[in-house]
Formats: sequence, C-alpha cells, structure tokens
Amino acid sequence: MMLEDKVTGFIEDLSSSRPVPGGGGASAAVGAFAAALGMMVANLTIGKKRYADVEEEVKERLKRLETLRDELIMLTDKDAEAFEPLSKAYGLPKETEEEKVRKDKIMEEALYEASLVPLKIMETLLKAADDLKFLGEKGSRIAVSDIGVGILFAQAALEGASLNVFINTKLMKNRERAEELNQKADVLIREGQALKAEIYGDVLEKIR
Amino acid sequence: MMLEDKVTGFIEDLSSSRPVPGGGGASAAVGAFAAALGMMVANLTIGKKRYADVEEEVKERLKRLETLRDELIMLTDKDAEAFEPLSKAYGLPKETEEEKVRKDKIMEEALYEASLVPLKIMETLLKAADDLKFLGEKGSRIAVSDIGVGILFAQAALEGASLNVFINTKLMKNRERAEELNQKADVLIREGQALKAEIYGDVLEKIR
Repeated sequence: MMLEDKVTGFIEDLSSSRPVPGGGGASAAVGAFAAALGMMVANLTIGKKRYADVEEEVKERLKRLETLRDELIMLTDKDAEAFEPLSKAYGLPKETEEEKVRKDKIMEEALYEASLVPLKIMETLLKAADDLKFLGEKGSRIAVSDIGVGILFAQAALEGASLNVFINTKLMKNRERAEELNQKADVLIREGQALKAEIYGDVLEKIR
Repeated sequence: MMLEDKVTGFIEDLSSSRPVPGGGGASAAVGAFAAALGMMVANLTIGKKRYADVEEEVKERLKRLETLRDELIMLTDKDAEAFEPLSKAYGLPKETEEEKVRKDKIMEEALYEASLVPLKIMETLLKAADDLKFLGEKGSRIAVSDIGVGILFAQAALEGASLNVFINTKLMKNRERAEELNQKADVLIREGQALKAEIYGDVLEKIR
C-alpha cells in the first residue's frame, strides 16, 4: 500500500465544505504526527549501545508519547463531536423572547464546551513537546531532524488549536469566563513558543 | 467511519523505527492538510451571494489548491522512494580504493537526489501559501480560522522539509553544489516566513 493512500481519506474530508474535520481536528491530527515522530526517534535510540545509559528513560518517554499520540488521535474525533451541539444550537428558533433566552443559554454552553477540546489539544501538545526536548538532547543523533520536524508540527498544531479556542470564546456572552479560557490559551501558546525556540535552535545547531 | 481511522495507518508507520515515512514525508502530508484547509474555505465561499464578486477567482484558487494538494500527497511517496538509493549507497563496500571511489560517487548522487524532493515540497507549499493569502483576504469570513491553521501548517511543513534538505547537503562532498541547494532552501524559508507573518497576523486581527 502506498503511503499516500493512508492519509488521503482524511485529506479528502478536510477539503470539503463539511464543517468537520476542520482546523481543530486537523490540529489534533498534526499533533499526533508530532508525537509519532518523537516515538520514531525513541524507537531508533532503543537497543543502540551508544545510548545504553539513557535507554530506560527513552523507553518511558516512548510510552508517554504513545499515550499522548493516541489521545491526540482521539481528540480529532472529540473536536468533531463538540461541533454537533454547537451546530444544532445555531439552528434553534429565536422568534419569541422565551426562545431567544433558551437559544442564548444553549449557545453559551455549546461554545464553552467547544472551546475545551482545543484547549485539551494544546495541553497534550505541550506535554509531547517536553518529550521531544528530551529526545532531541539525548536520543539518536541520526534522527535529530525528525525531532526538528516534530517540534515544528507540535507548535503549529498548538497554535492552530488556539484559533479554535478564540473563535468560540469570541461569541461567548459571559466575558469573564471567555477571558479565562483565552488567558489559558495564551499561556499555553507562550510556553509552547519558548520550548519550540529552544528545541528547534538546538536541532539547527546540530544539523547545519 | 471515525475520522481517526483514516489517519491512523500513516501515524502508525511514522511512529516506527522504519526509515520511511520520516520527517520529509510527514512534512509533505502536513502540507497537503494545509492545501486541503484552503480548499475547504474555497468550498465554503463558492455559491454564497456575499462573495459573488470573487467567485470566479475563488474557483480558480480551488482548482490550483487541488493540484498542489495532490502533488504534496504524491511527494509523500516520492520522499520515501528517494531514500531507497541512499539507503543502498550507505550499504556499499569500501574495502578497496576502487570501491571507495565508487561508493563516494554513488552516495553523492543519492544525497543530491534526496535533497531535491524536500526542495520540491517547499516550492509547492509556497504556492499554496499564496492561495491561502487570497482566501484569507477574500474568502468566507466564517472560516478565517481555518486559513490561520492552514498557514501555520504550510510554514511548519516548509521548514520541516528544509531540515531534510540540510541533512543531505551536509554530507555532500561537492560543497558548491551543496551550498546552492542550501541557499535555495533559505530563500524559500524566508519567503514562507514573510507570507506566514502577513497571513497569520491578518487572521488574528479578524478573530481576536
């Protein structure tokens, strides 16, 4: 089977005008690629004499990354599921005052719930970035470029997910709750950016 | 079929210690995600009254992005194919002087060829970024976050592919030819960064 066959189904869905998968689900998928690249480097390190002294920790990182990768794959679908109630809420009638109040309340809750999934994606990616950092420092040197690609993907996915926090919080009426979510996202972006700059700088130094 | 099933095969392959797919092929795949997100925004724009005056150009951009997307999917496999002769070259004997000369020559050519695929990935992504720019400016506003995610992916994939230029050129003996490839990659990185900063800044302004 050609490699391309394995991604084509998802990419076809992404290209269509259907609301899911969109940027949120795609961010989770790219995040899973990042974790997978870390796993690849761990797998290339384990069993090599030269890296015997770090083998135990590499094995732990591999296990952690596998869990994070599978969470990110799962979050691709969670993102689609969270969109459903939001989509339904948009369609509710608002003819009478009573209907309007009800719609607002349901919308508000659906927007909040739809923000939580991309926040979870961001948190999961920050954990994966920490594993990439370790593997970039201690893992097999022959695969250091894959750590570089991994951290590029992780931060792009983290920031991509943040946009899906912001589009939902922007529509929330409860501004206090919205700002709380935005601030959480901003902290995660900054932490990710700092980690990325460190890891990527280190990779470039080794490669160029 | 759950969305996750559609990406899992590729991600499983990526996680393993097998040399392909690695960072190069994954960059092409993430690049295809970027083009697909642009197509999604184009598809959400076409047929809407509000965007009737740009419909013809949006349709052209959609067609262009489809071609670029399919090229990137194809390049996922091309990257794997280019690795094969390189892998074989590494395994050649170098006992006698004659064998050494022959191995060096074959290695040099395989390294050169293996650099061309990621360069092609980078060029293709820069074209896709231009389409994302247009769609971010003129396309449906309800999907502007997807343009943001798309350009994050495009630039991460472009820089990810560049690492696979650099790891190959680093080993080339013909430094002049190696530097030529590196300079091409550097120009593409800078052009991509400038486009990304512009497009992403514009998206953030609309979203936040």
